[in-house]
Amino acid sequence: MHRYRSHTCGQLRSTDVGETVRLSGWCHRIRDHGGILFVDLRDHYGITQCLADPDSPAFKALEQCRAEWVIRIDGKVKGRDESLKNAKIPTGEVEVFITEIEVLGPAAELPLQVFGDQEYPEETRLKYRFLDLRREKLHKNIMTRGQVVDSIRRRMKDTGFFEFQTPILTASSPEGARDFLVPSRIHPGKFYALPQAPQQYKQLLMMSGFDRYFQIAPCFRDEDPRADRLPGEFYQLDLEMSFVTQDDVFAAVEPVIRGVFEDFAEGKPVTQAFPRIPYAESMCKYGSDKPDLRNPLVMQDVSEHFRGSGFKVFARMLEDAKNQVWAIPGPGGGSRAFCDRMNSWAQSEGQPGLGYIMWREGGEGAGPIANNIGPERTAAIRDALGLKEGDAAFFVAGDPAKFVKFSGLARTKVGEELNLVDKDRFELAWIVDFPMYEWNEDEKKVDFSHNPFSMPQGGLEALEGQDPLTIKAFQYDITCNGYEIASGGIRNHRPEAMVKAFEIAGYGEETVIERFGGMYRAFQYGAPPHGGMAAGVDRIVMLICGVTNLREISLFPMNQRAEDLLMGAPSEVTPRQLRELSIRLAIDPKA
Amino acid sequence: MHRYRSHTCGQLRSTDVGETVRLSGWCHRIRDHGGILFVDLRDHYGITQCLADPDSPAFKALEQCRAEWVIRIDGKVKGRDESLKNAKIPTGEVEVFITEIEVLGPAAELPLQVFGDQEYPEETRLKYRFLDLRREKLHKNIMTRGQVVDSIRRRMKDTGFFEFQTPILTASSPEGARDFLVPSRIHPGKFYALPQAPQQYKQLLMMSGFDRYFQIAPCFRDEDPRADRLPGEFYQLDLEMSFVTQDDVFAAVEPVIRGVFEDFAEGKPVTQAFPRIPYAESMCKYGSDKPDLRNPLVMQDVSEHFRGSGFKVFARMLEDAKNQVWAIPGPGGGSRAFCDRMNSWAQSEGQPGLGYIMWREGGEGAGPIANNIGPERTAAIRDALGLKEGDAAFFVAGDPAKFVKFSGLARTKVGEELNLVDKDRFELAWIVDFPMYEWNEDEKKVDFSHNPFSMPQGGLEALEGQDPLTIKAFQYDITCNGYEIASGGIRNHRPEAMVKAFEIAGYGEETVIERFGGMYRAFQYGAPPHGGMAAGVDRIVMLICGVTNLREISLFPMNQRAEDLLMGAPSEVTPRQLRELSIRLAIDPKA
Repeated sequence: MHRYRSHTCGQLRSTDVGETVRLSGWCHRIRDHGGILFVDLRDHYGITQCLADPDSPAFKALEQCRAEWVIRIDGKVKGRDESLKNAKIPTGEVEVFITEIEVLGPAAELPLQVFGDQEYPEETRLKYRFLDLRREKLHKNIMTRGQVVDSIRRRMKDTGFFEFQTPILTASSPEGARDFLVPSRIHPGKFYALPQAPQQYKQLLMMSGFDRYFQIAPCFRDEDPRADRLPGEFYQLDLEMSFVTQDDVFAAVEPVIRGVFEDFAEGKPVTQAFPRIPYAESMCKYGSDKPDLRNPLVMQDVSEHFRGSGFKVFARMLEDAKNQVWAIPGPGGGSRAFCDRMNSWAQSEGQPGLGYIMWREGGEGAGPIANNIGPERTAAIRDALGLKEGDAAFFVAGDPAKFVKFSGLARTKVGEELNLVDKDRFELAWIVDFPMYEWNEDEKKVDFSHNPFSMPQGGLEALEGQDPLTIKAFQYDITCNGYEIASGGIRNHRPEAMVKAFEIAGYGEETVIERFGGMYRAFQYGAPPHGGMAAGVDRIVMLICGVTNLREISLFPMNQRAEDLLMGAPSEVTPRQLRELSIRLAIDPKA
Repeated sequence: MHRYRSHTCGQLRSTDVGETVRLSGWCHRIRDHGGILFVDLRDHYGITQCLADPDSPAFKALEQCRAEWVIRIDGKVKGRDESLKNAKIPTGEVEVFITEIEVLGPAAELPLQVFGDQEYPEETRLKYRFLDLRREKLHKNIMTRGQVVDSIRRRMKDTGFFEFQTPILTASSPEGARDFLVPSRIHPGKFYALPQAPQQYKQLLMMSGFDRYFQIAPCFRDEDPRADRLPGEFYQLDLEMSFVTQDDVFAAVEPVIRGVFEDFAEGKPVTQAFPRIPYAESMCKYGSDKPDLRNPLVMQDVSEHFRGSGFKVFARMLEDAKNQVWAIPGPGGGSRAFCDRMNSWAQSEGQPGLGYIMWREGGEGAGPIANNIGPERTAAIRDALGLKEGDAAFFVAGDPAKFVKFSGLARTKVGEELNLVDKDRFELAWIVDFPMYEWNEDEKKVDFSHNPFSMPQGGLEALEGQDPLTIKAFQYDITCNGYEIASGGIRNHRPEAMVKAFEIAGYGEETVIERFGGMYRAFQYGAPPHGGMAAGVDRIVMLICGVTNLREISLFPMNQRAEDLLMGAPSEVTPRQLRELSIRLAIDPKA
């Protein structure tokens, strides 16, 4: 018989009754039932109920065992009485009568129970991550993560992509966030950087003729902690294709992303054909470039109904051409109580309030706005929004550039409060036609709005002839349930267009050469048209697992102070190490 | 028609004759044959011959094109005359008459020709890696590398392993080499380290109950350049299993490694059942713990034949019990010329010489040694080594600990010089029973000889009762054709045994806690018996591709000065970056 196990703890069935077996695993739960000791023995594959009565030669040894001890047992499989069968676990028809026990790894008193659902402080969970990871839910999430990565990889290969590994010790990459630096020992005073993304390398792969690239790529950004981003490192599905248009990228990626969600949706609907929503339209309809399309509410510009109306606040605002009034429909929200609640919520968000009209059952539009604009305009607004009695509408007014973010929040809030958001579905969409540039009000200059490497729509001609703020880029995102899960673009592969694009954002050719020298050089030697995307693996897994904290789907995450409490990183190093790297600490003694 | 291509450059066949097609790719080679311009258009998938005569509207545009320009062509597929068919390429039955050309990406004068086999200095190849990677051989090696990784991954999954990603920003790992450090911005004066290997994490995964782990893991060592190791980063197939003995690891890993070699051997024989050679035996027979088993030569201890013999140098040496005389057989080497050549080679290696006996055709053993020990002993040696007329034997003598390395070199040299090494095969073997400890002569102390986390054979009992230098470990390697390609062990999962093992090597419990705190802590809370391996992906790919320089199978390698010439890494950083990281440069002005 094998030294440790003849079967896993998830393997025995009623067909094994009568067999002598050997199992190894963790004591998940030990119970004393009328003098008989039951132990649920757990390994990665399942749980098997084992027991010893006082006649068993193993009884005394089992009495010593405690939760999470690792033991090996020998025993005989018996069928359970019908009434004692446990349909919830695959081994529930049998149990094992223990004849021998060997303790393989005892456990000290546990700082964290593996059995049960007790909650523990995050610090405890991270310091004893090896215990936390044994717990059912986290263990399952991590396995799901692996399966999601498998599904992504399989689908990418089936689509004709090849997998490559790009360097991790490299030069500063141009993603705009802060780099992690690695001092060079051999070159004193110089540093490597960890890649924020393999952007330049993947474009270089296209210049090297590899045609279809992908990678499940570790990426590194030294950013201050954010709720939806792990400190330090994260993984993205990075991909790039040569000789393609935007439609080709969509045609390649959409089935992969849809398929991955479908693999794990457990019956929840997944968008079949992703709608393609222009950025400007998304901002107007949903107040966001990552709209949650499970929320059916669509905003409308209702400025016309307020222009010259008796509601003077809005009417006066609209005298400035840049201002608008947008309406958020609130089907089923037509009660004073609900409208007041939304108004208070807006105030708690730092807004002056949230104007509304409500249509009570059997009544006309009511509220201060309705009173001021009169029944005709009130009815026209109701018609425009497709509302009926019992519904409400909410209004945000002013410069859309300033209120759009709030309008998106308000749409989300109204949708959730009115229970209009179907949580059990994955709503996916392309957001397209992102602007190439945006106005940086602080520095009074034109900036890249997203990726500086994207091809402007209209190419060099647009860069030379058009108001930069009106130029759209071949730049696109995928959103799912209100999260941006992927982003990409067709790249600007013509060196003269690249120089011009940077010039508009205030950077000379020397900056391009200095910051992106390798890629810029490659553009000079036969660059194919190319484009691609990067999708956030962690975020996709998070959505699939239905959790909101990335630490629930990560193996050994750092805490929000960017510390690995399990391994004790970061830590101090020796003077010799510093000397070898030609660096000294420069710690502010006041700090 | 698609914007860039209706077919790839590897796709057209005689069945496509008559079709109007669109291709995009690089101008691999442009030739003028009697006024007709031929261009071999190349992409990732192949090469298609395209042409334009002076009547073609595209002729003038094609005249402008140069090597490595990226162009799109439209044209008509025609069959080639039988005599002009090229059986060497899949598209060789057809050619495309160009009707239209669009230049997608022109190229400046090339520092490196893609077409042809011209050699270039390594610096040029690395700086213009995107051109080098377009060349047939390197392009193919990189694709093979990807296929090898795919094969490994598929086989590991089929064997029941699960893939995980362990952190890259972590704490110093205990592999004994120098860490790359990453200064922490949030914790001034503290540093992360890049993992030399995921050793602790994989053991923690076992402690977390995941049972079967693998990863194609990036590893980082800040070591001075070596011929067989890339500076900076390398990849290993890292794996670990719970509830296993050494035999289980062998049973899981051997088919994976064998299968991977078989997938790419192109008919070359691959060892079916890996022999298991104890470390001590390997040293005696082959003078190495990574023997090249394609070399059939097996050394023997022939001390008995020299003890008290007339060959005084050896006889006197053997009066010291620790000394021995080993013989390397040299079948077919029985000529003065050959034996003298070996002797000179030994001297060039810093040895006093290489003693020999030669058995000339139709004659007795000859040479100074034979003369001194006489015909009886000479014949006995010949019999022991299974030699015949026309053969030779070479001798190394002294303390085996000191001469063993040279004896291995001599075995290799004799085998290669006599053409005994069949290059066209993959000879794989397990080397087992590595010693747990070795004597450090410099520091006059006992050291770990390999991995300090290995389980000593005999466990805690052996550690407590046995001379440490006689303790073997459950520690093993796989060798292939003279390279160590994998290494592993059954781990010491009992905290008390771990403390004892470190104590023997002179480290107190506090060192264990300080250096391996996370893992040591985990051992206290129910650790399963576990073991695993790590195989060098780069080295396996190198063997499969039949190259000896790792840069020939790496995408964007650094040079031997650990510089990325393409991206310009490492590079200087800004004072602001240093300030944020609380470090200062400390460059020796004399340097």
